[in-house]
Amino acid sequence: MPRLNDREIETYTTFACRLVELAGRAILPHFRETLTVENKAVSGDGYDPVTVADRAAEQAIRDEIARAYPRHGIRGEEYGSHRGPEALTWVIDPIDGTRAFVIGLLHWGVLIALNDGEHPVVGVMHQPYVGESFVGSRLGAELRRGDATRKLKTRRCAALNDAIVCATDPAMFSAPGERDAFHAITSKARARRYGTDCYAYSLLAAGLADLVIESRLKAYDIQPLIPIIEGAGGVVTNWSGGAADEGGQVIAAGDRALHAAALELLKPAAIT
Amino acid sequence: MPRLNDREIETYTTFACRLVELAGRAILPHFRETLTVENKAVSGDGYDPVTVADRAAEQAIRDEIARAYPRHGIRGEEYGSHRGPEALTWVIDPIDGTRAFVIGLLHWGVLIALNDGEHPVVGVMHQPYVGESFVGSRLGAELRRGDATRKLKTRRCAALNDAIVCATDPAMFSAPGERDAFHAITSKARARRYGTDCYAYSLLAAGLADLVIESRLKAYDIQPLIPIIEGAGGVVTNWSGGAADEGGQVIAAGDRALHAAALELLKPAAIT
Repeated sequence: MPRLNDREIETYTTFACRLVELAGRAILPHFRETLTVENKAVSGDGYDPVTVADRAAEQAIRDEIARAYPRHGIRGEEYGSHRGPEALTWVIDPIDGTRAFVIGLLHWGVLIALNDGEHPVVGVMHQPYVGESFVGSRLGAELRRGDATRKLKTRRCAALNDAIVCATDPAMFSAPGERDAFHAITSKARARRYGTDCYAYSLLAAGLADLVIESRLKAYDIQPLIPIIEGAGGVVTNWSGGAADEGGQVIAAGDRALHAAALELLKPAAIT
Repeated sequence: MPRLNDREIETYTTFACRLVELAGRAILPHFRETLTVENKAVSGDGYDPVTVADRAAEQAIRDEIARAYPRHGIRGEEYGSHRGPEALTWVIDPIDGTRAFVIGLLHWGVLIALNDGEHPVVGVMHQPYVGESFVGSRLGAELRRGDATRKLKTRRCAALNDAIVCATDPAMFSAPGERDAFHAITSKARARRYGTDCYAYSLLAAGLADLVIESRLKAYDIQPLIPIIEGAGGVVTNWSGGAADEGGQVIAAGDRALHAAALELLKPAAIT
């Protein structure tokens, strides 16, 4: 399809921000729910707050897309995919970081991308409890909280031994060679941080971290974060240097020279 | 010294909440500071936002204690300790989770305890960006955010294979046998989560996690969290089952049976 013009990008960015707000409202009653529920015996009867929150959020998003853009496609975590008559498709992860959510931690978020049929062109990450959104497209990237808006820009960091590296959990590196490749990077890096989920990518866009290296991602885990990182001047690929849109093994870097250096160490374990 | 009465506990709890608020105000201008600073070349000239924030926060706390309770002692991370003519001592970690803070992550907090000369009797954990405080004493524990107050209570979880286990980073287990002991627990547990700092203890008090197992803690890392966990019905000890007040190897559990089961696996690596 023809490339979206700037006004269309702006319109869809505004709409994506509306979608994540709706999702956030559906999620918040279930966050740290045991604190508000008198009867804590909620486990064991098949009731799972994060599943309920996940589904309620995705349903709220789908309903709003169907209302506003019935000809667009949808690709969601909970309710599957359908193509629309138009090439534009919304890619949805209603709660990225469900394990963090379950424990009441803060590093999770609602992720939404608009894919133009070839690549994600608008992306939003929203944490409703904290009330902040990381938003990106080729027009730029920003952090929005209340009335404040701050421009996001990745920082320079060309050398691995200056880099701060994030990953959600070392257990994600289970394919042959992955653990060694990740260790080859972290053993040279300045610092390494686990437990980060979508926040690692968002803060890399903010110029606060340098590398995110993960594996076993789904398309909806990464597509919404790509326009944020790229809009802030960073780069996201798979471990072979190709497009990361379908997930799998992913590397994000704020600095292209650092990306190239890290990729050399990851390539021996690259699957695709 | 004689045990503090309930009114004194309440008075000091209110004062501790005032201290963390002051600290939070001193910290916030430095959080994710690169987003507000035009010139990002802040590194390399010896300027370190987290050190500046840490010191500004501890100074704000010390000034207020000196004004209100000049006869109390102070034990802080940045400016050392001094005993007062009274046995009461304030134990301060102005930013617990500095590594998370540096990256712009959210799992960090201001920690303050009041120690009565034998044990911490009041504890507060405050995250100023999120605007929430976990507060505890023998009178109970609660989560405060804005005008909302919710009671904290640990959950039942007697069996290791039902437990969610948290630790800030596996690299903290560097003494002989520590890594094996930690692995003996996580290999049996339902789930394991890294990157948690003071949030793990606070959410254990909230009944959302079951075990926190760490090593190499300082007294000011753990004393403020002890009254929160104990006030919510949990237990905190070192890996030998003794008092955890001086830090080192720490285990916190929401359920006493789980604590006993985990302690059996940790004891072979207990230093004290």
